[in-house]
Amino acid sequence: MAKVYMKQSAPENPITRRNFIELASATLASAGFAAKGNAETSSRDPHSAAFVGDFDASSLHGKIALEEHFALAEVFDHNHAGKNLPPAFRSQILDLDEIRLAEMDRGGLELCILSLDSPGIQGVPDTSEAISLARRANDHLAQNIAKNPKRFRGFAALPMQDPQAAAQELTRCVRELGFVGALVNGFSQVGAADSVVYYDLPQYRPFWATVQDLDVPFYLHPRRPLETGMRAYEGHAWLAGAPWGFAVETSIHALRLMGSGLFDEYPRLKIILGHLGEGIPHGIWRTDNRIYRGSISLKTQRPLASYLRENCYITTSGNFRTQALTNVILEIGADRVLYSVDYPFEDVVEAQTWLDHCAISDADRIKIARGNAQKLFHL
Amino acid sequence: MAKVYMKQSAPENPITRRNFIELASATLASAGFAAKGNAETSSRDPHSAAFVGDFDASSLHGKIALEEHFALAEVFDHNHAGKNLPPAFRSQILDLDEIRLAEMDRGGLELCILSLDSPGIQGVPDTSEAISLARRANDHLAQNIAKNPKRFRGFAALPMQDPQAAAQELTRCVRELGFVGALVNGFSQVGAADSVVYYDLPQYRPFWATVQDLDVPFYLHPRRPLETGMRAYEGHAWLAGAPWGFAVETSIHALRLMGSGLFDEYPRLKIILGHLGEGIPHGIWRTDNRIYRGSISLKTQRPLASYLRENCYITTSGNFRTQALTNVILEIGADRVLYSVDYPFEDVVEAQTWLDHCAISDADRIKIARGNAQKLFHL
Amino acid sequence: MAKVYMKQSAPENPITRRNFIELASATLASAGFAAKGNAETSSRDPHSAAFVGDFDASSLHGKIALEEHFALAEVFDHNHAGKNLPPAFRSQILDLDEIRLAEMDRGGLELCILSLDSPGIQGVPDTSEAISLARRANDHLAQNIAKNPKRFRGFAALPMQDPQAAAQELTRCVRELGFVGALVNGFSQVGAADSVVYYDLPQYRPFWATVQDLDVPFYLHPRRPLETGMRAYEGHAWLAGAPWGFAVETSIHALRLMGSGLFDEYPRLKIILGHLGEGIPHGIWRTDNRIYRGSISLKTQRPLASYLRENCYITTSGNFRTQALTNVILEIGADRVLYSVDYPFEDVVEAQTWLDHCAISDADRIKIARGNAQKLFHL
Amino acid sequence: MAKVYMKQSAPENPITRRNFIELASATLASAGFAAKGNAETSSRDPHSAAFVGDFDASSLHGKIALEEHFALAEVFDHNHAGKNLPPAFRSQILDLDEIRLAEMDRGGLELCILSLDSPGIQGVPDTSEAISLARRANDHLAQNIAKNPKRFRGFAALPMQDPQAAAQELTRCVRELGFVGALVNGFSQVGAADSVVYYDLPQYRPFWATVQDLDVPFYLHPRRPLETGMRAYEGHAWLAGAPWGFAVETSIHALRLMGSGLFDEYPRLKIILGHLGEGIPHGIWRTDNRIYRGSISLKTQRPLASYLRENCYITTSGNFRTQALTNVILEIGADRVLYSVDYPFEDVVEAQTWLDHCAISDADRIKIARGNAQKLFHL
Repeated sequence: MAKVYMKQSAPENPITRRNFIELASATLASAGFAAKGNAETSSRDPHSAAFVGDFDASSLHGKIALEEHFALAEVFDHNHAGKNLPPAFRSQILDLDEIRLAEMDRGGLELCILSLDSPGIQGVPDTSEAISLARRANDHLAQNIAKNPKRFRGFAALPMQDPQAAAQELTRCVRELGFVGALVNGFSQVGAADSVVYYDLPQYRPFWATVQDLDVPFYLHPRRPLETGMRAYEGHAWLAGAPWGFAVETSIHALRLMGSGLFDEYPRLKIILGHLGEGIPHGIWRTDNRIYRGSISLKTQRPLASYLRENCYITTSGNFRTQALTNVILEIGADRVLYSVDYPFEDVVEAQTWLDHCAISDADRIKIARGNAQKLFHL
Repeated sequence: MAKVYMKQSAPENPITRRNFIELASATLASAGFAAKGNAETSSRDPHSAAFVGDFDASSLHGKIALEEHFALAEVFDHNHAGKNLPPAFRSQILDLDEIRLAEMDRGGLELCILSLDSPGIQGVPDTSEAISLARRANDHLAQNIAKNPKRFRGFAALPMQDPQAAAQELTRCVRELGFVGALVNGFSQVGAADSVVYYDLPQYRPFWATVQDLDVPFYLHPRRPLETGMRAYEGHAWLAGAPWGFAVETSIHALRLMGSGLFDEYPRLKIILGHLGEGIPHGIWRTDNRIYRGSISLKTQRPLASYLRENCYITTSGNFRTQALTNVILEIGADRVLYSVDYPFEDVVEAQTWLDHCAISDADRIKIARGNAQKLFHL
Repeated sequence: MAKVYMKQSAPENPITRRNFIELASATLASAGFAAKGNAETSSRDPHSAAFVGDFDASSLHGKIALEEHFALAEVFDHNHAGKNLPPAFRSQILDLDEIRLAEMDRGGLELCILSLDSPGIQGVPDTSEAISLARRANDHLAQNIAKNPKRFRGFAALPMQDPQAAAQELTRCVRELGFVGALVNGFSQVGAADSVVYYDLPQYRPFWATVQDLDVPFYLHPRRPLETGMRAYEGHAWLAGAPWGFAVETSIHALRLMGSGLFDEYPRLKIILGHLGEGIPHGIWRTDNRIYRGSISLKTQRPLASYLRENCYITTSGNFRTQALTNVILEIGADRVLYSVDYPFEDVVEAQTWLDHCAISDADRIKIARGNAQKLFHL
Repeated sequence: MAKVYMKQSAPENPITRRNFIELASATLASAGFAAKGNAETSSRDPHSAAFVGDFDASSLHGKIALEEHFALAEVFDHNHAGKNLPPAFRSQILDLDEIRLAEMDRGGLELCILSLDSPGIQGVPDTSEAISLARRANDHLAQNIAKNPKRFRGFAALPMQDPQAAAQELTRCVRELGFVGALVNGFSQVGAADSVVYYDLPQYRPFWATVQDLDVPFYLHPRRPLETGMRAYEGHAWLAGAPWGFAVETSIHALRLMGSGLFDEYPRLKIILGHLGEGIPHGIWRTDNRIYRGSISLKTQRPLASYLRENCYITTSGNFRTQALTNVILEIGADRVLYSVDYPFEDVVEAQTWLDHCAISDADRIKIARGNAQKLFHL
């Protein structure tokens, strides 16, 4: 019965959805999932019930992912010069066409919401350069989306160095380019290389007003701390990046936003956190408990956990761990969990295999794979 | 910090919702929950966050419950003659007015969907007597609902002894009395005391067509097996009732329905199972696995689990156990779990205290307490 | 990264344990697990960490299983005459040599504790025939164990029709044949085909004293109800067996034992329940709650759940479902959960793949796979 | 039935264990738990089964806690001058006698393993002063333990500024003062106020050899980052402490230890992490995944998760959240989870109420409350 674990072949043409069998499951069908059925061999095999019964789960398509990155050649080659990256990686991250579509097919992804890779615009201290680069990146992305509008959508890269310019660029991206939100890579360096600016600061309140007015989510993606913020990682630079420091940086930033009263002022803001929540779901009870017991006086009206639950969404990017997912579901609820891969850093098939088989209900699986994203992005 | 566990006082006037503080949580407010706030003492205390932050969870109201029973005096006194019931129990189960409303206030219940107690009409072998009794019970319930229409709704009692009469009575109850569904107590004795008739039988297909057409749920409530079906319980009569036999009877009945192809024929049927699913969620994978591996040929199109997930709803009645609830959420998803107490057999405050504090997300807690019922019953 | 799901090749010589690489994990090594390492490709790949890091999980061996059945040809051919069994099944269940050893190798099983298939001796109403058949079955098993003493152990089949004879046969099997316990297939037919005798009855108390004195576990394995106990299954005979009725029968029997005060009288009795507990872990809270609230008077000193937790062990046989396993762990604790396959009814590789990858801690995985069995059976 | 949540009265004399009723549960009794039984009212009430049946869970005693702090007056008054601490707090943390014993009785604590509060010796840059202060603190603790040896044990405070002196002081504390391990508050300032020294550095390897040789656990307790390490917290100093920064600091330190190969060199080292693991259990899979996929070359032999599972223990101090505890149990197993309160920062009754009722098995509850500590500290 190990079949379900072993088949991961991609149907040739997952998007056109020709020649699919009639779906047995109304739920699945109404959720927009396509399946290449295999009724003879698997029709009542409960092991094929990655989603629901009557078809081969391993050919399920229709997933939506939202932490999927591309790079601009000019920036990528500058940032990663001399780094030990796998040979094919550069091709994968620069490509916005055939390589990516083939991987999406392989990984059951119908739609990816694409974003500039980290640190992106945030690592450009010169404000006018940041503004200009953001515009170039967004235009580049928009042109490529236009070629495959059923497979790609876009998150705006934003020059947060200038809050007003960031608001303008976001407005342009949403209104003119059809982007569905923004993805920002943590703090910005503003004016100087050793500058660290977080978005809870007062100068960003008008920017957040714009985000709320546009009714689009803001993905707070990680970045590494600056060298001057690396003290705790000294001698362990590896730890400062994706293996741990990413979550440290992003969790602190998100908690700053929560603790600043931002979500009381703009209660309809929607923040997306990757990697199953950057550790916050596991620790937020203690955070609130210490604030309460320590008589810490914040400007907020509610426990921080309520902002996590009501203003945040969590993706699975790069954290394909059932135990952690269960923790998130039991803290925040499956309605706020969204599938993501973190391509090309992660493997689309590994991510898919995990989501298709992890020990959650199929109802939640479908929401996470697709339904929640459809609602959040009005797809 | 044990306060939250200890306060369970009922606010004086939970339903009129006067003088509530402004709710901190938009989610809660939009879900229709009323709270008697206690902002000064608990505003940022995470321990009061039974639902969300800014108020005292123990005064939360607005729950909807749907396995709450009443009895007709004539039937109750006949059925329970000589039984060792607590003194106040008869008053509680017969009452459809002040006693019940006071208990609902005490237990944070805004609305109860009421039903005749088990075995109800199902234990009346004489068909015309069953038809007549069902009508009397439903009229009695309707009259009492009319006195408190904001607090009570009704499930029809049905004379399943005659499928056509049952369909007619359900239609009358829904169309004329405003009932929101049916609650039937397991198999019916038809024509003879030792008769056992389950509803997967062919003669019930037109009845199910009516249920689907009316778009109302059918609550499959337990009953004890007949004496002639008690072999395994011999010498342990206690085991045949609510402690275990109820789940045995009801799970078999529900699996008969699933295995008969009923839900393929009427895919929009909605069956409600109490007591966290009568054990089915824990075992359904094995059921499907044995059907598949044992090459058992059924008339069904899909694994039985898919009918459980797509045609069934599960209530918490009488099973206030977090571990079992978690199992149900991870098998079926929180969208299909609904709060119920099983009053007057269970205590409204115990049930409420459990739901308000069990280790699930507040989003799911709100759904289970109220939101899912609002959707299912179009409230 | 899907590799770990896909490799299930059996090493040629899992038992001799030659040429294993040095195990990275002291825990694993001390638990007796053998692994054919694959350090080059997987040494730090967290996905290969079915147990722990440094080797290919899919070649892990050393599991112990205890609901693994054989049949006597004479009984099998009589019982299953005319049934639609898979062609190879008869060979598999009769074999106690090469077929079985090859399957054990394929499924990572170092040791199987073997038992006569259901209903075995319990379905032989004639007491002297039952006594004689049990003796023949046990001797047959002992002879085959002797050929492969490192791979096989035995559970005694018992003529429960005669409690004294059953006690004597168990004593003989343990003392003379080296068996490690008993496996009994539910109620016995005693004297007449339509007889149903459960072991909570007074005449079995001396038998239980013997079981306790011998300090060996008693596996309460399912059997189908008799035709006269099939009322609820009428028209759905498939439901009365392994798909559901097995759990119904066995759970009732186990609860009878608990409710009879047996475990107060013999507090060191150890009962093993298969299939993740036959549904009892999911429902036991409600059972105790109804006993308490319903003022049911039993001869027991404690809630039934305490006997489940302190006198029972649970195996995974035929129920490879992570959600249900998690429920059991959170109700009873991982120290009382033991791996089993239910061979040849279930597939050894499917069972192994599930246990090796399901979302529990590796510490618990090792206990369940092997450690708990070592303790329980003093291996 | 809310009784069980509401009773938390402390029996007068929990330690002498006079006049306890005979415990119904052999498990509990053998685990050393004392209970003031209340057989008449609760004997079969499953809701009182915080541990097991037959007694009032709220009077359960016998817990062992190990992140319980005291302060030296000289240090406390220096460190906390001008801070807004609750009035009674100073008395509580300085006291090692009646106040503490009364709280322990109130919170069901039989034994506390005491430690100097954070940052303790680690915040003393002058090495000889650190050595001297550690000695004074340890002697002070030892004198107070001697007055109540059945209620108190000690963790050594260590002058990690000088690894050799730290090893000597630990040896003295274990061999001469009878201490059961060490508790160190994160990095040390060595020689200068703005110095940050972590213990993965080469100069600490001989110290770790001593820890391993003494076979005592090392509790890695949090401390705040220095001002120069506070960049990410700028404007949100509250966030740098117990609400979040504690976990950031301690998780990085623990991962440095793991990533340095320390546990390959000293495989029998036992590190204790508080607060349900400082976030590591939630994120460790991603850490290993990024190391593997990012081709990060470490000096380690295994995935970091294996060190977490085999060299670390996790306490519940200050994180009384069932969802997070469940995550830890499913990642690491209940055998490595130990109860702690974090007194006097947390409330003993809140902690106890949570542990006594959270949705885990009673077997695990007993291990966490007492059994695992008995094994780890050879009590």
